[in-house]
Amino acid sequence: MKGSGDKSVQGTAAGLEDLLTLNMVEGLGVTLLSRLLERFGSPEAILAASRRELEEVEGVGSALSRNISKARKQIDARAQMKSAEKFAVKIITAASDDYPKPLRRIFDPPLVLYVKGEYKEEDALAMAIVGSRRASYYGKNQAERLAGSLAKMGFTIVSGMAWGIDSAAHRGALAAGGRTIAVLGSGLANPYPKGNEKLLAEIVENGAAISEFPLNFPPRPENFPRRNRLISGLCLGVVVVEAAERSGSLITARWAMEQGREVFAVPGPIDSTTSRGTHRLIKDGAKLVERVEDVIEELGPLAEVLTPVPQEEKPGARGLKPEEEKILEVLSPSEPKSIEDIIAETGLTAQAASSVLMVLELRKLVKQLAGKRFVKA
Amino acid sequence: MKGSGDKSVQGTAAGLEDLLTLNMVEGLGVTLLSRLLERFGSPEAILAASRRELEEVEGVGSALSRNISKARKQIDARAQMKSAEKFAVKIITAASDDYPKPLRRIFDPPLVLYVKGEYKEEDALAMAIVGSRRASYYGKNQAERLAGSLAKMGFTIVSGMAWGIDSAAHRGALAAGGRTIAVLGSGLANPYPKGNEKLLAEIVENGAAISEFPLNFPPRPENFPRRNRLISGLCLGVVVVEAAERSGSLITARWAMEQGREVFAVPGPIDSTTSRGTHRLIKDGAKLVERVEDVIEELGPLAEVLTPVPQEEKPGARGLKPEEEKILEVLSPSEPKSIEDIIAETGLTAQAASSVLMVLELRKLVKQLAGKRFVKA
Repeated sequence: MKGSGDKSVQGTAAGLEDLLTLNMVEGLGVTLLSRLLERFGSPEAILAASRRELEEVEGVGSALSRNISKARKQIDARAQMKSAEKFAVKIITAASDDYPKPLRRIFDPPLVLYVKGEYKEEDALAMAIVGSRRASYYGKNQAERLAGSLAKMGFTIVSGMAWGIDSAAHRGALAAGGRTIAVLGSGLANPYPKGNEKLLAEIVENGAAISEFPLNFPPRPENFPRRNRLISGLCLGVVVVEAAERSGSLITARWAMEQGREVFAVPGPIDSTTSRGTHRLIKDGAKLVERVEDVIEELGPLAEVLTPVPQEEKPGARGLKPEEEKILEVLSPSEPKSIEDIIAETGLTAQAASSVLMVLELRKLVKQLAGKRFVKA
Repeated sequence: MKGSGDKSVQGTAAGLEDLLTLNMVEGLGVTLLSRLLERFGSPEAILAASRRELEEVEGVGSALSRNISKARKQIDARAQMKSAEKFAVKIITAASDDYPKPLRRIFDPPLVLYVKGEYKEEDALAMAIVGSRRASYYGKNQAERLAGSLAKMGFTIVSGMAWGIDSAAHRGALAAGGRTIAVLGSGLANPYPKGNEKLLAEIVENGAAISEFPLNFPPRPENFPRRNRLISGLCLGVVVVEAAERSGSLITARWAMEQGREVFAVPGPIDSTTSRGTHRLIKDGAKLVERVEDVIEELGPLAEVLTPVPQEEKPGARGLKPEEEKILEVLSPSEPKSIEDIIAETGLTAQAASSVLMVLELRKLVKQLAGKRFVKA
């Protein structure tokens, strides 16, 4: 079962079971797991490797090699699969067509996702709205309002289901009849925070709850920065509504920048500690957001998808950013190109190419074929 | 009495009387008056010119030429001078050493200033704080606080004495024991707004009230945009605290940009109409201000004047901006250079050269000699 990481984690029953097993190994994160897959070719081969072989891989110490070699005995992946069925949770691997496309573009996409509810293709048109747990009345109000306006325009609202801004964002999307996705920092059978089950149930009915952690995984503090990369990774941009000076939301904003997504921040009173973080973001270049138009404007050509274009105009003929023109110039309808080729021919950075391709795909100007190859649509 | 504008308006009794007369002619603004001075050489010669000669000057129509030719009969400049004495108002011409230095650098400095109180050399270290008349409690609070902090650092606070933010800024400076200057949009014997006399008296005792309008000139709406160019022109920068979407404060900010001064804006709640204007400014590139440090930081090397420099370091040896280095490179202690020479040799714009020279003068790295010529200090 030698092959690329993608092929090796394909949804065969045994392959999935082994991958789930590895996903439950204590201390084995996405980066290391990807490195092991590259070296050994498949989850099965990793689990069959000797501890010495495992430790030859950079970053694998003796504690981890022991955990991996014991994994098949100690970890019951079948029970996890049954449990998932019971909780109505789908397990989606990176090889699946159901895997969220925007996540494929980030540096370290999770190899396994647990999804309760449904992730739809249209959810690629997503905006994250995040912020402080200890939010002000003002902040919660604005989060709800912005989420509602964006949801009405067709955006899926992604957040972390924390108290405060996150919950307000989910609620705003739901109240507007829109779709919303919660990315959790714990397993879906052990949702965090406790007491937010009613909101979670509504989110699942009108979108999805997503986690990369095994079903009963506890909400360890170190999960949340990792979780935040998925919040930004699922979206075209992140709106930070309120944030204290040291805040998890600022981590989400940093992820967004690294992933080539837009960063927006809502200002507030300068004597409010929960606006310190958003003011810092604005000073550092985040776009100041008062109204939904501020978001749409920044997304540029994508906004045209959302606003009707006069019939006589060729769609996409106007308002293309230079990077978008560059990519369209090197693509043809008949000759699929890999992202590496596109990067080489356009001179764009990997991040830029990746996010521009996502926008072009959403605009139906570019089509992605199997094996992450692109053609003009 | 042929000569440059500067020489021609020198403080001889007759010259001053004629200049005051011209300054009171209906419809004769600074730009046109400067043009007439350039053509005729002196106030006296302008007043003696025929209507036909006057109308040869671009922008002088028949109504204005009539007003000028009748001016000596109809306008009593001596009464104005007596009245000034009675009101304890000094009349300062552009030729006087007491004329505010920062104003010399703007495009259209007033040729006559009425000053009640005292304009000191140290007032060149000034910051304008302006904003809405219909300000919120939040806005007034922030204006007062920022004015107080800046005043304590040695800044003179300049504003327009309007209700709301302006008055709060003056009060903040006064409460901190600092200096403050009100630039009025009416004559000093007819101060606007009515009812603010107590504040005006305090300002005059701890700074100055300044106007370019004759003593009893009414507060016509069209005076205020002109007045605003003096508010920014007296300062290193303008802090807009609160402003509606169409607001006089935004005019002051625009003047500041045109004059090469810094523009700062205080954010606020996005559902507050009085923060619309400041958010617009931030979107357009104004520096977001939460604390006085945000202002100091932006002023760069000037901040070093305000914060103690370790003894062993040569003052000015560090933190110079590239434009400042450029100007210092082309100057020597012995060979005075005009601003035109400096512009030609450095390649800086007139605006940049002018504002950088102002900063360098304040830092005592550059000295201005007679005839607007500069040497290294």
